[in-house]
Amino acid sequence: MKVNHYEAVTQQSVEMEGPHGCRVRWLLGERDGTPNFAMRQFEVAPGGYTPRHSHPYEHEVFVLEGEGIVVENNQPHQLKAGDVVLVKPDEIHQFRNTGGTPLKFLCLVPNSATGKQATVAPECGTE
Amino acid sequence: MKVNHYEAVTQQSVEMEGPHGCRVRWLLGERDGTPNFAMRQFEVAPGGYTPRHSHPYEHEVFVLEGEGIVVENNQPHQLKAGDVVLVKPDEIHQFRNTGGTPLKFLCLVPNSATGKQATVAPECGTE
Repeated sequence: MKVNHYEAVTQQSVEMEGPHGCRVRWLLGERDGTPNFAMRQFEVAPGGYTPRHSHPYEHEVFVLEGEGIVVENNQPHQLKAGDVVLVKPDEIHQFRNTGGTPLKFLCLVPNSATGKQATVAPECGTE
Repeated sequence: MKVNHYEAVTQQSVEMEGPHGCRVRWLLGERDGTPNFAMRQFEVAPGGYTPRHSHPYEHEVFVLEGEGIVVENNQPHQLKAGDVVLVKPDEIHQFRNTGGTPLKFLCLVPNSATGKQATVAPECGTE
């Protein structure tokens, strides 16, 4: 068993093309001995966003704090604390903070995602 | 993509031997098309607890609200909002609410857990 507070885990930069004001903590992952999936926690600063991208694995997301949107292709869905999002494999998606405080969410991925390349979607009229 | 608030999901009883004051919401699972793992949300009433049990799959837990303990065999670990717990396969564990408000947490399991039998641990002196 491992018990830890999420704020005790070091924040890292998001290592791919396209994010802005976005930090990640790997709360649980293969180095902890997770057999199947990893738990990460993201913080997106006001005005910030994750890359608009897709990948061949899913996200299971739980919004902890803040306000924002998740964009599905070009369709925005409002987000607030307590919202749950399933991003299916290969769906183009982006999380954006539209509020004045950090947007914090959990985002879980299968272990098979580790090291897999994500595809950054072309910015075709979304901004 | 699926977007939903966790409180919009119906609470169910916990269908196994041994829980007290414990309800569950299946936020995301195989019926939603999750390829690998399921997200559930538990609420344990003041004084309540999950079964003291083990099973051949892991839990990845994030505490949302309230106060309690997670018991690892007979060793308690304090829990508060923001705590993260990895319960490895076959570890005997129990979550108990020791506060005055509901203890709310996310608990994710692999899809392979669906329908698998858990083993309720004998109550050998823990209560």
